[in-house]
Amino acid sequence: MDSKHPQPAFILVRPQMGENIGAAARAMWNFGLDHMRVIAPRDGWPNERAVALASGAGRLLDNAGLFQTTAEALRDCTYVFATTARQRGLTKPIVTPERAMEQARAIHAEGGKVGVLFGPERAGLENEDIVQANAIISVPVNPDFASLNLGQCVLLTAYEWRRATEEIVAEVMELAGTEFATGLEVEKLGDHFEERLNDAGFFFPEAKADSMRLNLRNMWSRLPLTRADVQTLHGVLRQMVRWKERG
Amino acid sequence: MDSKHPQPAFILVRPQMGENIGAAARAMWNFGLDHMRVIAPRDGWPNERAVALASGAGRLLDNAGLFQTTAEALRDCTYVFATTARQRGLTKPIVTPERAMEQARAIHAEGGKVGVLFGPERAGLENEDIVQANAIISVPVNPDFASLNLGQCVLLTAYEWRRATEEIVAEVMELAGTEFATGLEVEKLGDHFEERLNDAGFFFPEAKADSMRLNLRNMWSRLPLTRADVQTLHGVLRQMVRWKERG
Repeated sequence: MDSKHPQPAFILVRPQMGENIGAAARAMWNFGLDHMRVIAPRDGWPNERAVALASGAGRLLDNAGLFQTTAEALRDCTYVFATTARQRGLTKPIVTPERAMEQARAIHAEGGKVGVLFGPERAGLENEDIVQANAIISVPVNPDFASLNLGQCVLLTAYEWRRATEEIVAEVMELAGTEFATGLEVEKLGDHFEERLNDAGFFFPEAKADSMRLNLRNMWSRLPLTRADVQTLHGVLRQMVRWKERG
Repeated sequence: MDSKHPQPAFILVRPQMGENIGAAARAMWNFGLDHMRVIAPRDGWPNERAVALASGAGRLLDNAGLFQTTAEALRDCTYVFATTARQRGLTKPIVTPERAMEQARAIHAEGGKVGVLFGPERAGLENEDIVQANAIISVPVNPDFASLNLGQCVLLTAYEWRRATEEIVAEVMELAGTEFATGLEVEKLGDHFEERLNDAGFFFPEAKADSMRLNLRNMWSRLPLTRADVQTLHGVLRQMVRWKERG
């Protein structure tokens, strides 16, 4: 992953616990983001607890911009989101993390720079911070229980950035070196079963025999059988015949 | 939110630290899920640390099913997802959390029951657990840094469940009791500015005057001005005139 690509700055506003700053760094880097800014951290900077908790994402802290005010931290940003759970009594668009990160991608594609403000753990962002944002990000939580912490909020926003900017394949088949059976192999397996089951008197009563045959054929083609599966099933059938012949 | 709605069971397989069990409960309930199952928790059950950390989501732990094996915990499930970061050498579909929760919604709509397996913190799920799943959920993390913990994995999956099942509006305007200006009010504001700026010799040189007027009109209609904004801007203009007239 190329961290040089245009990307939003995630800006921690007056963060309190070093643990949470470290967790935010890890959450960002999990989804390929590494532009962090920190405004007036309570316990000074650099913060040893933050570095300890960031483990493999410590580089984000080393490179993080340190600012004293929100205005300073936003100086180069052309569009700013503020993350907040509470209604603020301000006239402002409120967007989901998904919509926000789609907008961020579009803004960066046009040469802009997005900043995302995350508030301090206990109280969240102040209205003085929020008026400096163009829009508010609100995570669609359970209205009866909204207890997202700083690291979780950063995680979900970073996740949506990666979803908005990477080609993510929704479904792949893990092959583990296996080959799927060909249509011909599946057809022959169907023939084999049909013959033996016919011998065994499986297709009864006669009125239902055709639909029973059809359902069986449909099952074989519906299942994503591997070549090895097909061999196993032929073997099962041969063994049943041997078992029967032993009497 | 009605927790009685059909929903997947989130199944913690041999979880180790009570803190993480509590965090998983909170993450689930943040997105409206409350069917938790626990398989062979390392430190026994109930777990005091888990209860302490679950805070507002403690009810999930009280109601959680306790099982000794994965097979027992999956007995009523018609479709099972296993969450795992590593490649397992098993032939199995691998889906994103988004695709998985869309499938889960569809399965529940047809009367099925989905289980989602989450592995122990340190090692993740064993192959013995994974072969009991129909598909694997893999979070699309940064390939250079994949450090999602149990609580984060539960959080992202629960988030996708809520996205798949709730009508979420991507963007709303927080109005805070304000009224937006009407087209007529914006037009009059434009007239007012045009008159005063004309008096002030703003539209110069003559060759550019028309496009300057057009751009100004466009700006007023592009901005989502409230009635109060319009009044403020009229006041600004009147004050500039008074200031000029004071000489």
